[in-house]
Amino acid sequence: MTLIDGRALAAELRARTLATVDTTLAAGSAVTLGAVVATSDPATAWYLRSISSAAEKVGITVRAVLVEPATPDGVLDALDALSADRDVDGIICLTPLPHGLSLAQAGEHIDPAKDVDGANPTSLGRLAAGLPAFAPATAQATIEILRHSGTALVGVEAVVVGRSMVVGKPLALLLLAEHATVTVCHSHTRELAQVTARGDVLVAAAGQAGLIGAGHVKPGAIVIDVGTNPTADGGLVGDVDTAAVESVAGAVTPVPGGVGPVTTALLLGNVARAAASQSG
Amino acid sequence: MTLIDGRALAAELRARTLATVDTTLAAGSAVTLGAVVATSDPATAWYLRSISSAAEKVGITVRAVLVEPATPDGVLDALDALSADRDVDGIICLTPLPHGLSLAQAGEHIDPAKDVDGANPTSLGRLAAGLPAFAPATAQATIEILRHSGTALVGVEAVVVGRSMVVGKPLALLLLAEHATVTVCHSHTRELAQVTARGDVLVAAAGQAGLIGAGHVKPGAIVIDVGTNPTADGGLVGDVDTAAVESVAGAVTPVPGGVGPVTTALLLGNVARAAASQSG
Repeated sequence: MTLIDGRALAAELRARTLATVDTTLAAGSAVTLGAVVATSDPATAWYLRSISSAAEKVGITVRAVLVEPATPDGVLDALDALSADRDVDGIICLTPLPHGLSLAQAGEHIDPAKDVDGANPTSLGRLAAGLPAFAPATAQATIEILRHSGTALVGVEAVVVGRSMVVGKPLALLLLAEHATVTVCHSHTRELAQVTARGDVLVAAAGQAGLIGAGHVKPGAIVIDVGTNPTADGGLVGDVDTAAVESVAGAVTPVPGGVGPVTTALLLGNVARAAASQSG
Repeated sequence: MTLIDGRALAAELRARTLATVDTTLAAGSAVTLGAVVATSDPATAWYLRSISSAAEKVGITVRAVLVEPATPDGVLDALDALSADRDVDGIICLTPLPHGLSLAQAGEHIDPAKDVDGANPTSLGRLAAGLPAFAPATAQATIEILRHSGTALVGVEAVVVGRSMVVGKPLALLLLAEHATVTVCHSHTRELAQVTARGDVLVAAAGQAGLIGAGHVKPGAIVIDVGTNPTADGGLVGDVDTAAVESVAGAVTPVPGGVGPVTTALLLGNVARAAASQSG
């Protein structure tokens, strides 16, 4: 079984992003990502620091907007302000959000041209229609990893476990656009192992540690593990029991070091593209 | 095998719509559906007449806007004008459209509040997010028929053949919202019969006469035939070979008289709902 190296792919993607950013900077414009934060959750703070540090390396400035007190209206106002600000090229809205506000509702306040993590439902709809739009970076990362690994997608059976707006649904649309036959499973799916074992491509995005074992995987399948479940000792594990599937799968992405770094790299790539098209 | 009577269900739905329209009319507002037509195709003219005649029966006025010459800009201008017109409650854009303009591109010029046939990609995105939105009436009709027939959807395998923006994609999202495990097939799917035969619910929306035969259907499955393929003698046939599947399927919708009348009834119901919420 091959263990797919997400960090190596991320490095390649960063090199491309750096070139795009350099062109924009040379034209006299800074490249700025606005990040709205309405929580004191340490995991969110950690994620913001990791994005900021990756952004710095490719010449992108992160402007964090802390919403305090953390109210729904405060979040929407912050997103409206960043959408209207000509100096801001891309916008992300970090979770968790204040009670009563969904990410999709917040996303509707992100200008689609700056919606670099595909949080606005309009972006998803445009994606479904084949119109230009940013996909959520995690879904995009899954496709990028499959492409990079040379996996044929036309006519193959792809099974996605999870139906979120951030991964499952946009990924199903992206896989359909690649001409895969796509099945979406979730917590109500009966005989999950039987359904997932149909997948030449299997994507686990359920947010449940160890959900996918050997019995869930078709021999030789490529398995993309989107799960990021915190462990008791402060680490991170995916939805796939990697040791168990080793003898069955053709390839698996590790957690950490698989989808995560590619996602961050693509998110920053989207910011660079947004900046290039807005300055053009 | 049961043959599902779409006309009877449509009559029930019309009675509900009539009540909603009556309330709006009693409040002093007419209920108006704007229809943009940019073709001299006789099938489109026939469809417009059939909608107008059904609308008349429930007290809805259809205002047809003929775009001549049929240019993309002409269509967009007509949709913008209807979107801005306070006397118009719902808007549909009939196909075929002028070369170079997709229905999704046109749909972006329909105010989502008036997008009664779910043509705006924003409507699809909102649908995916579980936010209030109109679904394309054909996709909505499929769900309505399944509900009305008492088909359990939670955890069952639903297979959709076709991935259009009008049926396949929105229907996949609606079926996911009903907690079905959903597979979307299309022209690149290998071993189509093997995949469709997994479906407790099978929806044929490929636009290919007779595509679905006995070998494609799981014994006892409910089969919804969304196909409307013109025949040489001026008639209409679906994607399902109804005679062939008779001995296998549990129930099938006929063409004509199945999904079609329910779609028209739901479209007019959406216009009535749009009018009620805009006058509220």
